[in-house]
Parts: sequence; structure tokens; C-alpha cells
Amino acid sequence: MVDYGIQYWANDDFFIEDGRVKVNYKNSPALIEIVKKAREDGYRGPLLIRFPHLIKKQIEKIFQSFEDSIKENHYKGEFKAVFPIKVNHYPNFILPLMELTQKRCYGLEAGSKSELIIAMAYTNANAPITVNGFKDKEMISLGFIAAKMGHDITLTIEGLNELETIIEVAKTMGKPYPKIGLRIRLHSTGAGAWAKSGGFHSKFGLSATELVEAIDLLKKNHLLEQFMMIHFHIGSQISDISPLKKALRESGNIYAELRKMGAKNLRYVNIGGGLAVEYTQYENHQNRNYTLAEFSGDVVFTLKEIAKNKKEPEPDIFIESGRYVCANHAVLISPVLELFSQEYDEKALRLKEKNPPLIEELYDLYNSIVEKTAIEYLHDSLEHMESLLTLFDLGYIDLQDRSNTEVLVHLIIKKVIKILKYKNHRDIIRIQEQVQERYLLNCSFFQSLPDYWGLGQNFPVIPLDKLNKRPTRSASLWDITCDSDGEIAFNKNTPLFLHDIDVNKEEYFLGFFLVGAYQEVLGMRHNLFTHPTELSVVFDEKGEYSIENLLEAQTILDVLDDLDYDTKEIERRLKQKLEESEEIPDDSKKEVLGQLYVMLSENGYLRTVFKGEGAIL
Amino acid sequence: MVDYGIQYWANDDFFIEDGRVKVNYKNSPALIEIVKKAREDGYRGPLLIRFPHLIKKQIEKIFQSFEDSIKENHYKGEFKAVFPIKVNHYPNFILPLMELTQKRCYGLEAGSKSELIIAMAYTNANAPITVNGFKDKEMISLGFIAAKMGHDITLTIEGLNELETIIEVAKTMGKPYPKIGLRIRLHSTGAGAWAKSGGFHSKFGLSATELVEAIDLLKKNHLLEQFMMIHFHIGSQISDISPLKKALRESGNIYAELRKMGAKNLRYVNIGGGLAVEYTQYENHQNRNYTLAEFSGDVVFTLKEIAKNKKEPEPDIFIESGRYVCANHAVLISPVLELFSQEYDEKALRLKEKNPPLIEELYDLYNSIVEKTAIEYLHDSLEHMESLLTLFDLGYIDLQDRSNTEVLVHLIIKKVIKILKYKNHRDIIRIQEQVQERYLLNCSFFQSLPDYWGLGQNFPVIPLDKLNKRPTRSASLWDITCDSDGEIAFNKNTPLFLHDIDVNKEEYFLGFFLVGAYQEVLGMRHNLFTHPTELSVVFDEKGEYSIENLLEAQTILDVLDDLDYDTKEIERRLKQKLEESEEIPDDSKKEVLGQLYVMLSENGYLRTVFKGEGAIL
Repeated sequence: MVDYGIQYWANDDFFIEDGRVKVNYKNSPALIEIVKKAREDGYRGPLLIRFPHLIKKQIEKIFQSFEDSIKENHYKGEFKAVFPIKVNHYPNFILPLMELTQKRCYGLEAGSKSELIIAMAYTNANAPITVNGFKDKEMISLGFIAAKMGHDITLTIEGLNELETIIEVAKTMGKPYPKIGLRIRLHSTGAGAWAKSGGFHSKFGLSATELVEAIDLLKKNHLLEQFMMIHFHIGSQISDISPLKKALRESGNIYAELRKMGAKNLRYVNIGGGLAVEYTQYENHQNRNYTLAEFSGDVVFTLKEIAKNKKEPEPDIFIESGRYVCANHAVLISPVLELFSQEYDEKALRLKEKNPPLIEELYDLYNSIVEKTAIEYLHDSLEHMESLLTLFDLGYIDLQDRSNTEVLVHLIIKKVIKILKYKNHRDIIRIQEQVQERYLLNCSFFQSLPDYWGLGQNFPVIPLDKLNKRPTRSASLWDITCDSDGEIAFNKNTPLFLHDIDVNKEEYFLGFFLVGAYQEVLGMRHNLFTHPTELSVVFDEKGEYSIENLLEAQTILDVLDDLDYDTKEIERRLKQKLEESEEIPDDSKKEVLGQLYVMLSENGYLRTVFKGEGAIL
Repeated sequence: MVDYGIQYWANDDFFIEDGRVKVNYKNSPALIEIVKKAREDGYRGPLLIRFPHLIKKQIEKIFQSFEDSIKENHYKGEFKAVFPIKVNHYPNFILPLMELTQKRCYGLEAGSKSELIIAMAYTNANAPITVNGFKDKEMISLGFIAAKMGHDITLTIEGLNELETIIEVAKTMGKPYPKIGLRIRLHSTGAGAWAKSGGFHSKFGLSATELVEAIDLLKKNHLLEQFMMIHFHIGSQISDISPLKKALRESGNIYAELRKMGAKNLRYVNIGGGLAVEYTQYENHQNRNYTLAEFSGDVVFTLKEIAKNKKEPEPDIFIESGRYVCANHAVLISPVLELFSQEYDEKALRLKEKNPPLIEELYDLYNSIVEKTAIEYLHDSLEHMESLLTLFDLGYIDLQDRSNTEVLVHLIIKKVIKILKYKNHRDIIRIQEQVQERYLLNCSFFQSLPDYWGLGQNFPVIPLDKLNKRPTRSASLWDITCDSDGEIAFNKNTPLFLHDIDVNKEEYFLGFFLVGAYQEVLGMRHNLFTHPTELSVVFDEKGEYSIENLLEAQTILDVLDDLDYDTKEIERRLKQKLEESEEIPDDSKKEVLGQLYVMLSENGYLRTVFKGEGAIL
């Protein structure tokens, strides 16, 4: 009945059928089936599900689009790409990525020493490695070692000091040298949240004056032939295509000018990342104003034009899209633990023989409300509530009166919604905020959706089943951290409605989609909740899926060990306290200790102890 | 010469003497001495320094203030407190905290299972444990086990379902029961960033109607005598005292009313946390409008008044301040790696025989600028720059022209600053933005200052020495992540000036203060940078300090292991690539492999390889 905007965000990766969200691939299993299978195997709490076939799908889309544009424009340069490891470092993503792209010229981008080690170990033969970010002598030496190992590696220089270090290392380490790239500081600025990646005051890149100086330095040290790439990055999640076009014109001219200054081996223009992902669930809230075809077409066309005008060869095109490659491959599944209903009916009303006058008035309002007076009476009742709560604070009315106030106002709101149901939709949604249902989710937004906390990024959310029933409750979502920021509040502009369910009778799961980019490595261990249990769904030739690479969430003891607690000491202390306790009969101490050990060997999410429903746990 | 607002934020913990920041305790060592000692021992990269004596100082301040208020008001209730573990989980904080507070009634608050295990293992005998946040049957059972071990534990109920679970567990596990607390949902809302912790639509707590229902449930199940505490929390970092006073009145009345409804063992009012820390470095930018004495005085006075009016006993007062207890105990030290000067002098100008007209005009402006025309010519030059950059994008001028544009505009700005030096300070600071120096810091803001990223929280920053010299450069701070968000930009409203130094000749360190609350556990591994090397500075009876609890940052291999990479496989792959390489002479393969292993066993920050300056690294 309601599709949660799946046509906007799902990228045809998923679809709704028979009221369930299904994977749009092979035998199209329903997500809820996959989740139930994992839970039957004993994996409770939140789940992170990866779909390796979606990684391949994205890579193919990008290559196809650029190859089409190249063909269409009779462009002579080639297309190459790397994945920026910082967007998803995890082996269950990186290893399949490399395996699935062996036939493409597709490598890895590293922005730190640890990432460079990953790139050196796993990049496919003949695929490129690029190294961005600030580098010391150690890291530059590591780049030289990679070159000696046979990697096609380019070190992108962020400042002239780095270039001087390269010159120094080249003297001691000798050939083969890595390729050298120069990050250019663009005048034109980006659009979107990361606009400051580009621009004159941006963190990264060389000014024109520094570029001229760099060319001089390279010439003087006989390294100009290693200078092969210029690089820029106007920002992540580019919402508007026009700043990209400006940046392309600017960098295209820099490319041509540098060649004219003698950089005859310069032949790669690396346009960085920024290809946006569509996260929205709502019409007219789109995150980007272009398609992939427009993006690749603009890149190829602009560079071709400049090369023609400046009579230079058409450069190879390099991109470093990360978010677009990995966002859609992972889905976070969270069980709903509880609904914090404040769904009072008339039975909750316990009016006294004699009530405070304002409560009597509220009761009258409730009884006399009709369509014509609905909004007016609603406003009156909210005002009365304010007054009554103040009376409570001043000691004039008691707790039962306060409770009656809450119940009456709630009843009035519900009545207004019912009366105005077929009237102005906007008004009703605004009132819905007053009666929102709180859904408690067995996950941590800090751990699993850090960009929600840091950047206010909304991820598409949808129940995995019941999609053939109309969701009736305006919903706010709570995680299980002890933090008021762990809440996705009901928003009247992007309202979320969920189903009215009884979690004691049936399970209900929400899926958060497009969480495969950044969310894992930025995950915070607030309240010590860990990375959720993860698994990959892999399809065989018959179209059947199997669960692979299952990796359990950390146990409580593992987490404490990570913080550098002496976990043996913790176990010893707990055991000692138990043994010294006079409150536990000696014959049951062993049993209690056993229960404690079960807890320590489970992860810290709720309702994770699968077995032992009969036991005290 | 400039004190970086130390009088506002330093809490008398630190002071400036002889141009250096010193610890205001015992023999008053300079921070820079401590840092240099650690670096001489081989610990490079960023450092997190803890001062356990500051933990004790904060606890004593809080207890003293409340005890004074209690005495002054002839208040009959007692004062007790717990530390919310979520604010700092690390053993080098928690263990000293418990050791230093043995003589106080000071315990721990847990918000998750893992935290409850820490509390059960380390809370001092007779000190309280409180458990907040959402709890399942397993966690509630754990609370019962804690009670049986002899802990003074209170389970705070967040919803009626939890209470039903407690009733169920009580039946199977028997006495002794933990104490029961009820979290109340306040009508009055908080102030500051976390205001939504309180309030009618907040994530936590029971409404009046639910409280009435809870009392009924407790009575019916003979557990009313276990109900001893009500709890509220209006939000972290309370900036304004007045919402707290409102909340106290409201909760005081709820306390009295619940007692009147039969809750005769109810005797603790737990006011949660929220006591604010002063982070500001600037006059008139204060974060809070009250003192600790005002805070404790208001709490005691308000509760006394209500108890008197309602003829109920004065409740014991419980607080859960975290930030106030731990923020000041830790300091992040970051070495400055590099200054990205774009400090052009006239030598950088390479004018041609014939220049584009606008460049000639810029040159004229530069030569003819005087005080009267300074601002006008500055505006003209910025406009010319825009035009010239557009001409470049359109292919009309070349890279050397673009460079000359940059240099000329820069020279004009510098000249304007020099001319207007003694004029309006505001104007100059605004222009300073144009010539800011970029200081590259050897740390990750995502890892070490996550609240800067997530909440825009500014932490006081100050160079550790050179404080007897005037800092002249308007500064922006960059971390070493590959992320444009890893920048603290120059802000004309809260301008930061640093010293003009040559990092090749001298070391320069910045200290970020008040980072002991939340920043560690929320730390993100962006680009795989880890928790920095940490150490504690402990003073002996003679006043001398020693470095204890030294804990090194994770090595690259440890980080990869944490992500679940097969590190043996990584080592094998790297070794194989080296061995198969035809570019490395056989006799030096062993040496290169050795260099690689050194890298893998170091952490991923820059310039961490201490030895081997002579070697290629």
C-alpha cells in the first residue's frame, strides 16, 4: 500500500512483492527470509547484510557509462578507476571487490599507511594504485617499495614539501620510481556538504604558483618524466552537476598548460570522487540533479573540447568514486524490540468526584468536539495542558490530575485526527507529531549510522514485510543507546509511518538501506555497542543464495579487551564476589557463574541469548 | 603575550609561566617537558596525556559543594553520586577513579550490558551502581546477580515493559532484589544541545499516567518496597540554570506525590548529569551561566522547599555528572608536521614582457596602494582575480599569468594588513582569513575530537611553548585524514593565531584541552588512524612526576586484524610480491622486507619511525 519511496532510492536492487522486500536478482529471495535464516542459526541483534553482486553491478554501470561516452565522442583517452579504501575498509567488501573486477582496469586508492598496505596486498595485477593525503618519508618509501614490487602506483603530492621528500627518497632508493601526481587547488568550488574539498581555501592541493614551482623542481631533479597525473576532488556526494563542469574546464586547462610547460608524460586527469547516491524516500527531495550518463558525458566532452582548443592529446580519465560503488551493497537490519505506546483509551482516565476546573474543561472539550471546532479545541486543549502542568509544578494539583490531563489531551488529539481524516493532509501530519509511536530498535545509530549523527544524513528505511498492509502509526525511531541523540524523530516534512504491531506476538524488522559507504569505519562504540553481526548473501548458478563470510558481533569480553581491560582480572573479580556472597546458596553458585559466563560470551545488544528461554536468562 | 583564554577554560588546572603551559600541581612540570620525555622514549605521533590528580580534584569539588549546600540549608538528605561509564570507559580512567574515591559514596552508572560488567567488577564496596537505558531480561537478570553479589544496585525503569520483566525475574531469581528506580518524563525541557533528553516527546521516561500504572503494578506484585529512586536527566552540558530549576520543581512534586500514593521507601531523587564544562577561549562566549555552588545550592534549596510544602522527608540527592568529572583529566597533544605557507614575496612574481591588461592593473594597484585607498583597492583586486581566473578557465591566459594573479593579490592583501595594522581590529581579522596559514597536525580529528565533527564542539587549543612570543599567523588547523571535514578553519569571530615557525628547525606542539569526556569512545577510525598513544602523569610525595600506564597506539597490523583481515595472508602476499619482483636485486630483498616489517609494526600516524634516520625510512 505504501512503498516507502522505493522507486527513488532502490536503484532496482530491491523491489516489493507480496508485501515483502525482495532482492532483485536470481531467485529473488525476500530479505525477511534471509534474516530469519540467520536468526534460526542463532545470530540475534542487528545484522549487516552484504550483497556482493551489487558491487559488481555498480562497477559495470560506471565502466559502461564512461565507455559509452568515450565511444560516442570518439574520445581517444582511456577510462580507469580506483576505489578509495577509506569509504569501506572491510575485507568482506574489499576482497570481493577485487575478485569481481579482475577484468577491469580497476584498483585501489589509499589515504594512509594502513590503507596503502591493504592496496599493496590486494590490488589486482596491472590495476592502478593511487595514494592521496599527507605523506611522510616513511609512507613515500612504502610507495617506492610498491613500485619495486611491480605495482602501477601514483603518489599524489599535496604540497611542495612532499615533492622534496620524493626527490630525496628517489636518490636513495633508485628506480623504478612510482608515478607522480599533483593535486591541484581549484578556484571553482563544489556543491553539497563537502564543498570545501575544492576551493581556494580548501585543505588540499597546489596553487598555480606552486604548480609552476613543482614543475621547476621536477625538471631540476630529472623527475619530470614521472609526473603523469593531475588530480582534483570537488567534494563528496555532488548534488549539482554545474560545479563539476566548471572544475573540469579549470583542470583541463591546467592539464594543457602543464604539458606546454614541458610535462610531456602528463596524461591522466583524475577527477576524484563525488558521484552522488540517491538516498531520498520522498518526491521532490532528490539528492542530485544528474544521471550517470550525463556525468560521464560531461567529463568526456569537456576534456575533449579543451584538448582540441589547446592542441594537446586527449587525456586518460581516472575516477575515484567510492560512495557510488559501495553504498548500496550493504543493508542494516534492526529488529523492533518494543513499541512505547502512549496510546491511552478512555479506560486510562480516572476522573475524581471533583476535578480541577481546567480538567473539567478539557473533558467538556473532548465531548463536544466536532469538525468545525476541531482545530480550535485542539489549540485550547494544548493551552490547558500547559497551565495544568504548571499547576502541578507549583503543587496545586496531584499526580492523578496530571495523568488525567495527559489522557484527555491525547484523546482529544486522536479524536481530531479521526474527524479531520479526509481533510487537509498537511494539517493531519502536523498533528500526528503529537501522537507518534516510539519504535525501539535493537541497534545503535552511533555504531551503524554515524553519518546520521554527524551530518544529519537520512538513510532509506522500510519494514521488511507487511507491505501489503497500510502503516498507520506516525513513527519515531529510538536506538538502544543511553543517548538522546540516538533518535530519529518524526518529521512532518518527511513523515515515516509504520505498522501497529504487537512485538510479543510477531516479529517486525526495519531495513536501513545504502549503508555500505563510510558507516562501518566511522562507527562509534557509544555505550560499547559493537559492529553488528555481518554476513554476505552469495548466489549460485541455479539462482539460489547462501550465507557466507558470517562474522559475529564482538562479545562483551572482546570489547573490554579492546579497551585494554584485563579481562582475566574482571572474570576473577566477578567470580570472587559471587563466591564470597552470602546471598547465594553454595549449591547454586556454579549455576549463577555459568549464567554470567554466557553473558560475557555474547555481544552487548539486547535479546541475543538464543537458547535457555526456560532458564532465568 | 597572548594567553589563549586560559583564564576561561583552564579551571586552574594549568597555567602559563616562562612562555610554557605548566601543570598547576606539585612541582608544576611544563607539558612540553612531559611530551619530550615520552618522545625520547620513542613514542611519536599524537599523545593523549591523563592527569589522575585532576579526577580527584573534580570529585572533591562536587562533593564539597553539595556538602556545603546541605549544611547551609540544614538539609536532612544525603548526597551520593555515580560516574556514567559511557562518558569514559577506559581502564586508565575508570580504575584510578574508583581508587581515588574509595572514601566517598561514589559509584558507577551503566547504560549497557558491557558497562554493567565494568561496574560489577570495579565499583567500590558500598558504593552505588545505577543502571539506565533500555534493558532486556538478560540485562535485568544481570542486575539481580549484582544484587546477590552484594552490590547496592538500582535498576532505572525506562518503560512499563521493563517493569513487567523485573516482576517476572524477581519471581524466578528471588531475593535479594535490586532497588527499583523510575525514570520520569518531564514536561519542562532542557537547554543546550541535548535538550531533547527531557521533555514530553523525549526518548526516555514514564509519563504521569505510566507512573500511576507502575505504582499499581508494584503494589500488586509486592515490590513497592523496592521502589526507592526517581530519576530524570534534562540534557548534557546544561548552559542555563533555569530549566534545571523548573525540572527540580517538577520532579520534587512527583517525588512527594508518589510517596503520598504509598511509595514509602522512595527516598532518592536522581537529577542525572548535565553539569557543564567551560570550553570557551573567548570573552563573552561562555558555555554556562552558573557556578557549581549555585548549581548545588539550587538543587538542595528547591528540594527542601517542596518537601516542606508537601510535608514529606527531604530526599537523598543523587547525581550522575560525567563530563564535569572527566573532561579536564585528559589533554591531546599533536605535533605540527608542516606549515602550508602560501607566503609569496615579490620574488615569486614572474611578470612577462607583455602581461594581460588585468594583471598590469593588479600590479599598478599593488604599487599605488596607500592608507586611504587600501580597502577600495583590496576589493578591486579581489574582483580582478575572479575575472582572471575565469579567463584561465576559458583558455585566454596561461598558468604563469594565473600564478602572477595569485601572487599579486596575496601581496596586496599583505600590504593592506600592514598599512591598516593600527586601524580597526575587526576589519583586519576579516582580511586575515585571506592569508591564513595552514598548520598540518599529526592527528585525526575524527579519532580524537569526534564531537568537533559531529556537534561542532570547539576544544581549547594552545601551543605548549613560545607563549612569551606574540603569535602572528592567522591559523587554520588540518588533520592528516584524507577528508575535508578534518579541518578547523580560521574563524573571524573566534580567531586563532599561532607562531610562525620552521618545523625543519624546531618542534611545535599544540595541546587540545578538556578532551577527557566522550572523545575516546566516540573516536572514529577514519583512514584507519587509531586511538593515540596514551600515558598517565602521576605525582609522588616529593612532587616529582612519573609516566605510568603507557599504552601505545595500535600498529598497522593490529588495526588490520581488528577489521578481520587475515594478517598472515597480508604478510605472505607482500613477501611473495617482493620475492617475485625483478626490480629488486636478490641481495637487498631481505633488507626491503625488513623495512616493510618495521612499517607494519608501527602505528599509522606520520613520522613515527624513531630510529633509522640514516636508513631509507
